[in-house]
Amino acid sequence: MSKPAGNASFQAPKGTRDLYPEDLLRRRYLTQVWRDTAIRHGFDEIDGPTFEEARLYSVKSGDGILGELFQAFSGKSPDEVERVRETGMAPFALRPEFTPTLARLYAARARQLPQPTKWFSIGPYFRAERPQRGRLREFLQWNMDVIGGPEPDLDSEEPQSESNRAKRARLVQSDVDCVEACIASLEAFGLSSRSVQLALSDRHLAAAHLVAAGLSAGSIDEGLAMLDRVAKLPREVAVEQARALGFDLNKYVRAATLSQGLFSSGKDWAAIDTSQGKVVANYLRIKSIGEVLGATGRLDWCQLQLSVVRGLAYYTGTVFEAIADGERAVAGGGRYDGLVELLGGPRTPAVGFAMGDVVVSLLLEDKGLLPKGAELMDAVSRAPASVRPEAFVVSADERLGDPHVAALVARLRRGVECQAWLEREDRKPWACDRYALRPMHARQTYKSTTNLKKLLADAEKQHARFAVVVHDEHKVQLKDLDRREELTHPTRGDFSADPASEAYVGRAIVDALDGR
Amino acid sequence: MSKPAGNASFQAPKGTRDLYPEDLLRRRYLTQVWRDTAIRHGFDEIDGPTFEEARLYSVKSGDGILGELFQAFSGKSPDEVERVRETGMAPFALRPEFTPTLARLYAARARQLPQPTKWFSIGPYFRAERPQRGRLREFLQWNMDVIGGPEPDLDSEEPQSESNRAKRARLVQSDVDCVEACIASLEAFGLSSRSVQLALSDRHLAAAHLVAAGLSAGSIDEGLAMLDRVAKLPREVAVEQARALGFDLNKYVRAATLSQGLFSSGKDWAAIDTSQGKVVANYLRIKSIGEVLGATGRLDWCQLQLSVVRGLAYYTGTVFEAIADGERAVAGGGRYDGLVELLGGPRTPAVGFAMGDVVVSLLLEDKGLLPKGAELMDAVSRAPASVRPEAFVVSADERLGDPHVAALVARLRRGVECQAWLEREDRKPWACDRYALRPMHARQTYKSTTNLKKLLADAEKQHARFAVVVHDEHKVQLKDLDRREELTHPTRGDFSADPASEAYVGRAIVDALDGR
Repeated sequence: MSKPAGNASFQAPKGTRDLYPEDLLRRRYLTQVWRDTAIRHGFDEIDGPTFEEARLYSVKSGDGILGELFQAFSGKSPDEVERVRETGMAPFALRPEFTPTLARLYAARARQLPQPTKWFSIGPYFRAERPQRGRLREFLQWNMDVIGGPEPDLDSEEPQSESNRAKRARLVQSDVDCVEACIASLEAFGLSSRSVQLALSDRHLAAAHLVAAGLSAGSIDEGLAMLDRVAKLPREVAVEQARALGFDLNKYVRAATLSQGLFSSGKDWAAIDTSQGKVVANYLRIKSIGEVLGATGRLDWCQLQLSVVRGLAYYTGTVFEAIADGERAVAGGGRYDGLVELLGGPRTPAVGFAMGDVVVSLLLEDKGLLPKGAELMDAVSRAPASVRPEAFVVSADERLGDPHVAALVARLRRGVECQAWLEREDRKPWACDRYALRPMHARQTYKSTTNLKKLLADAEKQHARFAVVVHDEHKVQLKDLDRREELTHPTRGDFSADPASEAYVGRAIVDALDGR
Repeated sequence: MSKPAGNASFQAPKGTRDLYPEDLLRRRYLTQVWRDTAIRHGFDEIDGPTFEEARLYSVKSGDGILGELFQAFSGKSPDEVERVRETGMAPFALRPEFTPTLARLYAARARQLPQPTKWFSIGPYFRAERPQRGRLREFLQWNMDVIGGPEPDLDSEEPQSESNRAKRARLVQSDVDCVEACIASLEAFGLSSRSVQLALSDRHLAAAHLVAAGLSAGSIDEGLAMLDRVAKLPREVAVEQARALGFDLNKYVRAATLSQGLFSSGKDWAAIDTSQGKVVANYLRIKSIGEVLGATGRLDWCQLQLSVVRGLAYYTGTVFEAIADGERAVAGGGRYDGLVELLGGPRTPAVGFAMGDVVVSLLLEDKGLLPKGAELMDAVSRAPASVRPEAFVVSADERLGDPHVAALVARLRRGVECQAWLEREDRKPWACDRYALRPMHARQTYKSTTNLKKLLADAEKQHARFAVVVHDEHKVQLKDLDRREELTHPTRGDFSADPASEAYVGRAIVDALDGR
């Protein structure tokens, strides 16, 4: 039988997807891991329109970008239709990325927003490229950004002082927040540092190395672009191209390799070579990030890899990519201190990263890390991360300093005990049904005060459920901020963990939340 | 100080929204109520692309629709740019509604999908109209659809028989599923039948009344269009226009008012007047819907209102609108039996409805029914509805029939006890922290078998956690399908509810899920 006329067969547009129920549950699984991770790390969710004025993208990247986008116009507006007919360009574009929207939102309220502002978003994005494995025309993306706060300006003298680690740690806190959240999401998917590594870099450090190897300061962009492709070139071609740009590739590689080795070993650059001022100053910043990651137990996920420069011209300073199995980039980001200003806001430091659903889905699928059937249905039915901070950690003794607080916050967010249990029992990450072990939404203050009353007021302003007051390495005090009463001990089980540990604090809070 | 050049001030495109953290949490609250309601009523989530081929909409509504849409094209494709320049029309459109996408998805897999297939989706939609209160150019919409299954064809003789209520109930089950889920979502938002009413209608019944009042069969579309605007016209103008169309408006109004009164009172049309065959046959269908809603305790939310015809030409049969405070339509839908076939699938009955975020947000805001601050944060942090059915209700005795099973399923989905508690305690809907009272994901079979083994196999295929075997009005058997063991009683509290009641079954299941 022939089909009746008008019964054309329709399909989804090339490079877009139809999601049937099992596909949709997989999408929910991904977005819930993203959202839970973001919330536990103290990020607030925002969103913007699906389409924006096209010039929002061209002001950042030039008019050429419009040829890479899906453009849109109102079929009802004679003006817009006329303009498209005349110029072949439409007034709107389907968003290809979130950063310009984010910068616009921040710029509009810069004065009222907290310092720093930590925002995330999850939504659809669009690119007019040829669809292929790992690249679609419509895809989902998770964006994580820390905007405002201190700028890690290492040109000032004091933070470079080797003796002042805590201050340096505070200056790179935004970078660390992003790196830690990125790692936590990978871990929540069941990935380990054996299969995924964060390749960290710093464009200023890479540039300083290039200059030390002979590159002139005016050619830094070309030099960085060359680092991006050097691995794909035959060695002699690369050496020749470097010479044409004015630097000695072998000299650069020796110095960069030395930096990279030092980062992993934790040794001081200063102890080896103090003759290259620019290199040392810039190395100190990435080294500070490494120190904090070491304190929170995340250094085994990271390596310094100066060839990572990220294509986008607007990155300034730290950049990083999460690379699976040595080849697939599943996430990437970096510092973009100039963008908010470009879009009408004040001069503002900012750092962020993004992860798309297409690559990460393929990776998890390959590794057997996507739940199926009833397991998938259960995984998406569990309680999400608490939007109210469950633990707001403050220090009662300023001598104790931020690192101790930061480490406890990081361990609560990670659910260290939960990860250990999953590993011990050889269970999949979505199978941790032991509620008391779960990761938590933990925060610390970004205010510079050490006044305990003011710190607790900050906790209440952020609607935290419990304050964790750290007195010393073995003594914490737990305050129920809703009921205005003190908690003493976990109430369940035979429990003898160190009272200042994540296990102790976590269980005490969960017991209190369950009303036992 | 003047701003540097290039610092243009950007805003969201007209009619679109920037969502800051509190706005985003409100959106999450709305979407979670929608998703939870859909899942508890046995609907599976799906989604499609954000943009579709423009002809997907024009095949349904004609080329004129493209002037109401946002059109899109790839800036990278010379062919597409050329086509836009020549014609002023783009190959793609940002989706203005979900139904064509849904019908396309169904048509592509019609043979493998269950009968009926119950799908929902939540996502952004776009219309190129002038923004105004309650109408934006980008908005969020919840779509609920039941596709396939029996067609409520009342031209066949048997289902009209007054003695065969159960069979008639089964024929309108899809319509009832939609109406009940719509009401449940309104109730979950804290709205009551005092402020929102579902205006139900049936285009065939309205048409039959018009024909009985003198309209010729060839003018039915014009007649229905006239009913849509009759309330806005001065009476004498309306009477004149009706006469021009060939029918007596006063005669129509008397008959329609009689039908509407009979629907609410539950009396039989047949007992009053059997002379108008077409009217009676069509009245029986809407009356069957009313009977089931009466049995599940939802009739107080509904009235028959034949002036509701819904503008879209593709509706066939049942149509309905949820109307708040007598004027604001917060949801609407109906039967569209021809659409799947139009888009390349087999002839397929279908019924659905949609609710947008803009109108419902304004309504909840006005009534103080949107949580704020810490309450909002807690509301979105609660466990979502279980994707696995928690209770799969089957009848052990075929004489007991569907109505008894259907009523228990409906009460479990509604969380009747939870609603009663909220009302008694005068609490907001998001404040029901009493887990044992919460609404459940309940299902029943759509298969025609009464074989208990086959029914239980259907429950397992749908990954149900518990089967509820109803033996008689006071005896149920509860089976844990994961552990393959029988449950006996709720384990907590002094509990003496009727063992076949929603309260008893619900508590027994929650106790088992909690492992007590």
